[in-house]
Amino acid sequence: MAAEIICVGTEILLGDIVNSNSQYLAQELAKLGIAHYFQSVVGDNIQRIHSLLDIVRQRGSKLLIFTGGLGPTPDDLTTEAIATYFKIPLTERPQVIADITAKFAQRGRTMTPNNRKQALLPEGAEILPNPTGTAPGMIWQVAGLTILTFPGVPSEMKRMWQDTAVPYLKAQGYGQTIIHSEMMRFRGIGESSLATKVNHLFELTNPTVAPYASHGEVKLRVAARAESIAAAKQLIDPVVEEIKAIAGLDYFGSDEATLPTVVGTLLREKKQTLSVAESCTGGGLGALITSVSGSSEYFVGGITAYANGVKIKHLGVNPTDLDAHGAVSEPVAQQMALGVKQTLKTDWGIGITGIAGPRSDDSAKPVGMVCIAWADPDNQVFSHTYCYGSDRHRELIRYLSACDALDGLRRRLLGALS
Amino acid sequence: MAAEIICVGTEILLGDIVNSNSQYLAQELAKLGIAHYFQSVVGDNIQRIHSLLDIVRQRGSKLLIFTGGLGPTPDDLTTEAIATYFKIPLTERPQVIADITAKFAQRGRTMTPNNRKQALLPEGAEILPNPTGTAPGMIWQVAGLTILTFPGVPSEMKRMWQDTAVPYLKAQGYGQTIIHSEMMRFRGIGESSLATKVNHLFELTNPTVAPYASHGEVKLRVAARAESIAAAKQLIDPVVEEIKAIAGLDYFGSDEATLPTVVGTLLREKKQTLSVAESCTGGGLGALITSVSGSSEYFVGGITAYANGVKIKHLGVNPTDLDAHGAVSEPVAQQMALGVKQTLKTDWGIGITGIAGPRSDDSAKPVGMVCIAWADPDNQVFSHTYCYGSDRHRELIRYLSACDALDGLRRRLLGALS
Repeated sequence: MAAEIICVGTEILLGDIVNSNSQYLAQELAKLGIAHYFQSVVGDNIQRIHSLLDIVRQRGSKLLIFTGGLGPTPDDLTTEAIATYFKIPLTERPQVIADITAKFAQRGRTMTPNNRKQALLPEGAEILPNPTGTAPGMIWQVAGLTILTFPGVPSEMKRMWQDTAVPYLKAQGYGQTIIHSEMMRFRGIGESSLATKVNHLFELTNPTVAPYASHGEVKLRVAARAESIAAAKQLIDPVVEEIKAIAGLDYFGSDEATLPTVVGTLLREKKQTLSVAESCTGGGLGALITSVSGSSEYFVGGITAYANGVKIKHLGVNPTDLDAHGAVSEPVAQQMALGVKQTLKTDWGIGITGIAGPRSDDSAKPVGMVCIAWADPDNQVFSHTYCYGSDRHRELIRYLSACDALDGLRRRLLGALS
Repeated sequence: MAAEIICVGTEILLGDIVNSNSQYLAQELAKLGIAHYFQSVVGDNIQRIHSLLDIVRQRGSKLLIFTGGLGPTPDDLTTEAIATYFKIPLTERPQVIADITAKFAQRGRTMTPNNRKQALLPEGAEILPNPTGTAPGMIWQVAGLTILTFPGVPSEMKRMWQDTAVPYLKAQGYGQTIIHSEMMRFRGIGESSLATKVNHLFELTNPTVAPYASHGEVKLRVAARAESIAAAKQLIDPVVEEIKAIAGLDYFGSDEATLPTVVGTLLREKKQTLSVAESCTGGGLGALITSVSGSSEYFVGGITAYANGVKIKHLGVNPTDLDAHGAVSEPVAQQMALGVKQTLKTDWGIGITGIAGPRSDDSAKPVGMVCIAWADPDNQVFSHTYCYGSDRHRELIRYLSACDALDGLRRRLLGALS
């Protein structure tokens, strides 16, 4: 009983809006365990909507979810297109007219003749009420298909989905099995290296394991189909544990966990504090750390030393080292980490200095080279040089630097030595 | 010669990501004047990709743009699916292997056997180079179709589209009439207020004027269809000038202009320098300023004073004022702005202190209240309290604060007094 999502709207074909409705409905179908293999976008055109109905019937899809094209203007013709495809006449529904009239009155306006169109539904179709807008949808069982229509306005569609469509689908027997998943997050290992290590798990069928890459982390989604979340977890948990054992410290958390939340939890547990000295990131590391509500418990502050004079005067960086090694060097990063820790009196200090690009400094160092140092509560200092590649954008290099600064701190808080 | 956009990826069907690639490509097709009536999403499944190829051929579409499924893992199978559909063997391209090896080496990593797969393209297909990632695409003329493939990572896809696909399509005769537009950007005025002021322009047909709202700014897109960019500009420019006259200082720039680039240009022209003292933004204002390459010419650095102790000791905030007015107050913001300017010896200083939420501090002040102060070269200090609304997210409140800090500086650099 596969479903399809069909979004109707020339504005999507023109790229004027992003198709967020499809994403929402896709998540909702996954939650209900309804299989869904295709999504389509089609313009406001009766013939093309008809051709799409031919295709979805050929594919054997049984549940069709339409969004868009229910408005009062002449180019809103989703309902008409569906009705004419099945050769069923449209009839005006008095309760829709009454509802629209009342809503207009409430806003101090009068219903326009255009709006009468929104009360037309194919004979035999049920009204799918729209509590927050004027365009109702429909639920129609026709020719072995279940067709649901929604307006394109996301807030109206979501409310109608939750209020009416979900209970309806559950009553029809959907949602007896659900899909539950855990998104495992990794840093310090590439997608292909991780895939190589867990390759044998990609052949599992329930749960399934699938890799995702995004900036700053690699992810594995472990997803199971079962009758309840608890039953799905029983399938998922052993695989998650196996992956954790394989990945070691490269795994940093699941689902809502992020590097700043994980580091924050560790610092809070240890009752330790942190400060940062930033050059190329310009404050971005501090901003990432303080993206977590409650970070004031462990984050004291930072010194952004974009100019070398600030590195010398406010972080105690040795001018001789700046001359000898350049501003982008591990000795300078180390002195920044130690300097900020001592100036702001914290347990940990991080120093970052690098070349975010697109131009290099006057040295021979490549764009994308970033030196990061960590000063620990015993004033031991560790440092590492990262090369993110000169083909990468300035903002991405800065973001990856901040992620690795946090990842390095996470590993040290967990007792890794290097 | 209609085009179709086909996005391959189970993660889209699961709703894990929004399909922003389709929107970008749709906009680009519109700019080139290429007709485009259908978009599809299909999972990582060879049979279903084959069925979609049947459908697009039946519809008579000639230009097929695929994104996604070019990665190194077993579920990346777009290229294989397309090749097997046309029964053309895949061949390994040595220059792709060389390119991937070089990119891995630059990042200090070794290519895994998985990545070899990314060098396989159907015989007869041209490589569509990927300057910023490891997965190249292809341009393939086969069976009367033109097929272009791109990886799913948006930044890589966009770069490949601009660098290679657009010139290729133009050489093929696409894009004879073009749509050219100017995106005008505003801060300090709401969407509906601006719309009311320029309401008479929304009825124009060539150029058209359309409003867009996004976080941190309001935009008006002035777009014209013409035979050349120069001809389109002749239609656009008078309307842009009219809107500038209406909007006054609320207009800050067009197209690539952002608040940090506009402020940077003004500071550079005046040969003045800037430093920032941040509390609730945690470094985000500095990060926004230094998102501009070359910002070291005018940005000296910052002090992030998340803890009150740092505000007192390193920014010279008076403890009595902290007690009397609270950390989130204009007197404290003013002392932060003046303190950082004097400590880091810059012409301008900005201070930000606020409640980013989701919880308030212990005072009666609401979440979303942010005090911003600007200290000018004559040590005059101005300040303002913004209320972004407690229903807004922490990250949005922080971002809007940084935008208004820059917008206030911009207005003062342009001679506005308040």
